[in-house]
Amino acid sequence: MPSQAKPAPGKLGVWIFGARGGLATTLIVGAKSIARGLSDPQGLLTETELCDGVPLAPMDKLVFGGHEVRKGTLAESAEEIYEQTGTIPYPLLEKIRASLKSVDAEIEQGCMVNAGRTIQKLVPKSKAASTKPLRAEVDRIRRDIQSFMKRKKLSRCVCVNLTSTEPQLKLNGNHGTIEKLRKTIDADRRTAVRPSTVYALAAAELGLPFIHFTPSNAALIPAITTLFEENGAPFMGSDGKTGETLVKSALAPMFKYRNLQVLSWQGYNILGDRDGVVLADAENKRTKVESKDALLTKILGYPLHTHVGIDYVPSLNDLKTAWDFVHFKGFLDYKMSMQFTWQGCDAILAAPIVIDMVRLADLAARRGESGPLRHLSCFFKKPLDVDAHDLHLQWHLLTDYMRRARG
Amino acid sequence: MPSQAKPAPGKLGVWIFGARGGLATTLIVGAKSIARGLSDPQGLLTETELCDGVPLAPMDKLVFGGHEVRKGTLAESAEEIYEQTGTIPYPLLEKIRASLKSVDAEIEQGCMVNAGRTIQKLVPKSKAASTKPLRAEVDRIRRDIQSFMKRKKLSRCVCVNLTSTEPQLKLNGNHGTIEKLRKTIDADRRTAVRPSTVYALAAAELGLPFIHFTPSNAALIPAITTLFEENGAPFMGSDGKTGETLVKSALAPMFKYRNLQVLSWQGYNILGDRDGVVLADAENKRTKVESKDALLTKILGYPLHTHVGIDYVPSLNDLKTAWDFVHFKGFLDYKMSMQFTWQGCDAILAAPIVIDMVRLADLAARRGESGPLRHLSCFFKKPLDVDAHDLHLQWHLLTDYMRRARG
Amino acid sequence: MPSQAKPAPGKLGVWIFGARGGLATTLIVGAKSIARGLSDPQGLLTETELCDGVPLAPMDKLVFGGHEVRKGTLAESAEEIYEQTGTIPYPLLEKIRASLKSVDAEIEQGCMVNAGRTIQKLVPKSKAASTKPLRAEVDRIRRDIQSFMKRKKLSRCVCVNLTSTEPQLKLNGNHGTIEKLRKTIDADRRTAVRPSTVYALAAAELGLPFIHFTPSNAALIPAITTLFEENGAPFMGSDGKTGETLVKSALAPMFKYRNLQVLSWQGYNILGDRDGVVLADAENKRTKVESKDALLTKILGYPLHTHVGIDYVPSLNDLKTAWDFVHFKGFLDYKMSMQFTWQGCDAILAAPIVIDMVRLADLAARRGESGPLRHLSCFFKKPLDVDAHDLHLQWHLLTDYMRRARG
Amino acid sequence: MPSQAKPAPGKLGVWIFGARGGLATTLIVGAKSIARGLSDPQGLLTETELCDGVPLAPMDKLVFGGHEVRKGTLAESAEEIYEQTGTIPYPLLEKIRASLKSVDAEIEQGCMVNAGRTIQKLVPKSKAASTKPLRAEVDRIRRDIQSFMKRKKLSRCVCVNLTSTEPQLKLNGNHGTIEKLRKTIDADRRTAVRPSTVYALAAAELGLPFIHFTPSNAALIPAITTLFEENGAPFMGSDGKTGETLVKSALAPMFKYRNLQVLSWQGYNILGDRDGVVLADAENKRTKVESKDALLTKILGYPLHTHVGIDYVPSLNDLKTAWDFVHFKGFLDYKMSMQFTWQGCDAILAAPIVIDMVRLADLAARRGESGPLRHLSCFFKKPLDVDAHDLHLQWHLLTDYMRRARG
Repeated sequence: MPSQAKPAPGKLGVWIFGARGGLATTLIVGAKSIARGLSDPQGLLTETELCDGVPLAPMDKLVFGGHEVRKGTLAESAEEIYEQTGTIPYPLLEKIRASLKSVDAEIEQGCMVNAGRTIQKLVPKSKAASTKPLRAEVDRIRRDIQSFMKRKKLSRCVCVNLTSTEPQLKLNGNHGTIEKLRKTIDADRRTAVRPSTVYALAAAELGLPFIHFTPSNAALIPAITTLFEENGAPFMGSDGKTGETLVKSALAPMFKYRNLQVLSWQGYNILGDRDGVVLADAENKRTKVESKDALLTKILGYPLHTHVGIDYVPSLNDLKTAWDFVHFKGFLDYKMSMQFTWQGCDAILAAPIVIDMVRLADLAARRGESGPLRHLSCFFKKPLDVDAHDLHLQWHLLTDYMRRARG
Repeated sequence: MPSQAKPAPGKLGVWIFGARGGLATTLIVGAKSIARGLSDPQGLLTETELCDGVPLAPMDKLVFGGHEVRKGTLAESAEEIYEQTGTIPYPLLEKIRASLKSVDAEIEQGCMVNAGRTIQKLVPKSKAASTKPLRAEVDRIRRDIQSFMKRKKLSRCVCVNLTSTEPQLKLNGNHGTIEKLRKTIDADRRTAVRPSTVYALAAAELGLPFIHFTPSNAALIPAITTLFEENGAPFMGSDGKTGETLVKSALAPMFKYRNLQVLSWQGYNILGDRDGVVLADAENKRTKVESKDALLTKILGYPLHTHVGIDYVPSLNDLKTAWDFVHFKGFLDYKMSMQFTWQGCDAILAAPIVIDMVRLADLAARRGESGPLRHLSCFFKKPLDVDAHDLHLQWHLLTDYMRRARG
Repeated sequence: MPSQAKPAPGKLGVWIFGARGGLATTLIVGAKSIARGLSDPQGLLTETELCDGVPLAPMDKLVFGGHEVRKGTLAESAEEIYEQTGTIPYPLLEKIRASLKSVDAEIEQGCMVNAGRTIQKLVPKSKAASTKPLRAEVDRIRRDIQSFMKRKKLSRCVCVNLTSTEPQLKLNGNHGTIEKLRKTIDADRRTAVRPSTVYALAAAELGLPFIHFTPSNAALIPAITTLFEENGAPFMGSDGKTGETLVKSALAPMFKYRNLQVLSWQGYNILGDRDGVVLADAENKRTKVESKDALLTKILGYPLHTHVGIDYVPSLNDLKTAWDFVHFKGFLDYKMSMQFTWQGCDAILAAPIVIDMVRLADLAARRGESGPLRHLSCFFKKPLDVDAHDLHLQWHLLTDYMRRARG
Repeated sequence: MPSQAKPAPGKLGVWIFGARGGLATTLIVGAKSIARGLSDPQGLLTETELCDGVPLAPMDKLVFGGHEVRKGTLAESAEEIYEQTGTIPYPLLEKIRASLKSVDAEIEQGCMVNAGRTIQKLVPKSKAASTKPLRAEVDRIRRDIQSFMKRKKLSRCVCVNLTSTEPQLKLNGNHGTIEKLRKTIDADRRTAVRPSTVYALAAAELGLPFIHFTPSNAALIPAITTLFEENGAPFMGSDGKTGETLVKSALAPMFKYRNLQVLSWQGYNILGDRDGVVLADAENKRTKVESKDALLTKILGYPLHTHVGIDYVPSLNDLKTAWDFVHFKGFLDYKMSMQFTWQGCDAILAAPIVIDMVRLADLAARRGESGPLRHLSCFFKKPLDVDAHDLHLQWHLLTDYMRRARG
């Protein structure tokens, strides 16, 4: 039985894989802004009464660092966001430039092993591939994190994967145990891993809590999750639930509550940005679509006609738009329909729940918990070790946990 | 502690106030059709595994009768529905004509006391007002039900109010106790009641379970609910939740789960039909809008800008269409939006939940329960004695009850 | 200069390729119903003041026949339509059964030469391929039409192609002249033609007006259009403009009128039915998408990001639904959007314009016109020999023509 | 016959009534930005090939001044716009601050005579009413414009009314001739005028071209339009067509082209901002709704069920959103529907067409034209002296005019 967490002692490191992407930039800008009282903590559950009385790491004690393959600075990334979507207000950006620069100093060169053609194309040529042997690469990643913690005098650090969706990795027995995975790595079999494998393994070796926010299947493989558990670290994934799928998982139960049979549920997502470029690649898209499409049958309890489309619309940038059409029948087999259009900014929706999970994963670690954090299932499209996809059931897992955490 | 219900013995009377309206006609046609195996029981929760092992009145044991102020026959009403919306399939109508005729024989002249100008206009002139003293009218209504039960050899009967939305009744101390209400009625103060008052009082005097499916505030007044309790009868209301409000109550919690602040929630309902005519009258509309508008603040926990519009669009008939626009802000106070369009047929959505409630009210009565049936709150826009408007919390009240009912 | 048409003398034959499909069935039912005064001529332009004073073939003088590869009767097809979409009212169907039966007697076995895998799968196995040599097949089709005209004592007949969208045919020099095409046919090179080639050639050989309502590229090839012109017959195509594309062509000019730059125009079509099955085949879909996608650049005058999706949603049957999202920028480069949802029944939208074109093609023939009927461009996604895709410019071509036709 | 305009000689004054409102601010910022090459002229028709070869006043020769009742500076108004909708980019605002300040120096105290309760509430108390006699007020307004022209050495100046929608003025014989209007003014009958009457009269007395962009009915009354004509000045109004109505007038003809009968057209507009506050007042809203609602019957040629709703949603600011639902029937009287959602920023849509009209009114004046500028009808919801509401017919009026203007 996990003990009550003690008040969060001092600073908490937040190590981000993909540290200058749109999501990470938004997250860092927002965290700094909230810490300095320049913005309201809107979007953060960990700043609502849900977490009253629970000793979470304070917003002004978060210390950021990470790995990144893109070039440029955080301020440049923030300016790009201002120009494209306006989600980072320009006057705020001006006030926060210096803080961003100091985070830049903590961002190291990321890993580019077998990342897939589309991700590689987005990266400056000289950095399009890591040339070191795999084993050396894992060690380097691990050392980067350790140096950061030492330099910043951090006793706790949560690792978060915010990199782009990778092509699916074909899994086999070599991913099943840590011994076999290590042999594969020592043999430098580069096609047997993705960058997320390297990142997750480094975190697991360090015994640090790990949040896997992307759908990539190469990170939380059995070899690595077992190692997290052995090293006493909690983890959770995968694929943050921020837009259309969030709405789906809130709405689908309604049809069950009324015995209205859903005949077809068509979902069309359009988005621009790097995320859109990456998902326009059929290889990477498959990883995502599988993640988005499974939940309806699980919630409703019967097979039905579904479709999830993702199309690249450059002009939208990060302003994701989704149209869903739900065809259902009721009494006397009469067919009816509903449709919704969701217009959200992905980074704006994702950033606060990443911060929430960082703080909650740190809480769990301090409470002595390890393994999959089932109470975070409401934040994921494919929650590890949780069968409930119904958002409301997932919410109850979280509220029950918080009640216990309050003691 | 209520005992387990025994297997439903024999036939169950279903007495409908508003027995030839679109909803009642759809309900009767559907019930007959399902009983004869001509249609699937789609839409009925009482035919799903939720109710497995619970002794409900079988579909082929329901016996219908009721009061009505409109002229015409059930078959004529069904034909009108076929022509307007096609929801009652023509070939089915042909097969079921004889059954409808036998129900027609059990429909008595309804009550038209102070029904408001718009409802009165919809009724043939000769029937536009009941001329008997109030007391005589209550007695007549009660006797009609008793005769039906006797004629049909029914020991159990559930009363259901499916009449049009009435203008709001100004309530005062005379509605507070049964003694004062009876004095008012004996004094024939006709503006102190509406038809639904007369109907509900008759049902309460007979100690029959009562389902109040409309928003009218004149039925379940304290004087009458107390009488129901004294006579050991269960009851529930008010205002069936079938469309836009249903979606609202399923969706609004999602914004809470993410600490996304809803800034504005605009809802526009358009509909034709008698229902639309009645709601086009500002007096009657007010009753409805109040019922639809309150839940958001209750679910979200803070005041917000809301609007509920209802407009009469004759060409739509009963195919209600609603457009909702939700404006919300998230991280960094960034504003986003979602919108949905709901296109449903009101009678098709309402009919099965009325049947469900009839069977569940009968179950409750057999289990010795009286008073408000809180577990039916998920079916109502303004559930009596229940504070939860969140559809998911309401659903848990129902599933918990069914678990207990299964024993 | 074409002379004025004389009053339409007697009956007009209407020979339909695909005579028992959903569109043809709807068209025949509707034409019979209007001719007998059972339905209003809603949807028909040829029954509006646009055609006042122009001697068109009267609705009650249209005589139907055609080719079909499906089995079953017109009444069965009409019943299926009633059950699926309700667009053909059941009581009307009852009244019109006898007429449908007499049309059934004029429907001959269609041609199945190189129709593509998906169309072949929809046809009863025994009829999945025409086995005669191509030349014999063309002759047979021609003779079927001649027999019909003789039997029904028709001096005029318009041929209409309403068959399913075929896979694209690879065109080459052999399709360029009638001599080469005839050589190809005599050599029985079956992969060089589609069923629509055989149908169109037969019509051209007979010198009958021809309306090509599908996007298939195998019918109005140069060899055949030249033959139509030589034989003095008018023709027009291709791909009827009935839904999403119709709206696009009405709406896109608005952005030009305001110098609002369209950045992206995404269109998603969902539909069921045989049409949906056929278009779910990537081969057949390509034919369609090209037809739907070209017009925006032509109307707006600059290249832009567009997407046209077509997905098969069986539960919708013929109730086509389309969602279009238009992203555009205006003053100060500010981005805005509009979206529309179109919910129409394809056969209901197409049937009247096919009847209109039959009557107008007959008018043109009587006026001595041959070659492409440019004034019918408003009815087509890919109008032959017309560069205007702007619906309003196309409309002016029609109104100018009608003014001239009135004299 | 108007002569060809000579090349525009020197600077052109632009005098704006409502000079610091959201629309005026956006217009001035944009004009300055385009003149200095900081923004593309997107949205301006007068910068497209439509106007090639026509001697329009160059963008960098426009000189701004005006009347305003609000307090504050243009820069403050621009900052407010940045914060509310982001439509004026912050870095641009920084670059343009000095220019805005110099325009501020040319803005005089506006007129507040009988403006209606809601407009008065929006104005600082000390300025909520003009206290001078009406005659003195008209003279003052006129002198302000003359001083501006003298100070800036302008020989030409176009006046534009961009003030808020006023409550409808009850018109009578006193508004019919200039003599009677002058008597009314000399008698200081303040309830017989609105601020727009005073502004329009001043412009007419000066013989300056006048663009009336609001729906207020108090400006272009017969007395004043006659005076404009006598003084040789062109004018046009009223109520700029920028959003939902623009779409309506582009889309409605499509239904006519197909003989699809529109049964109902429901339009719901939601907006925030001062514009929204003003229109939330039923008095002011009536003026607007009449303007928006008339066109459908005119375009379609038959009466139909329509509704135009305008609701105040503060969180939207100037980002107007409209949902329109169109119910129509076609062949076999089958009912179908389409719906659209328009999401535009009103000032962004309006500003460029105001600039266009300023330049075109100046062109007309130089060509010696006076009276209503019928070729500008495409820019107005209620175009003066033009019966065509069909956007495409209106567009042809403009293109025909430009062809003539090019010579």
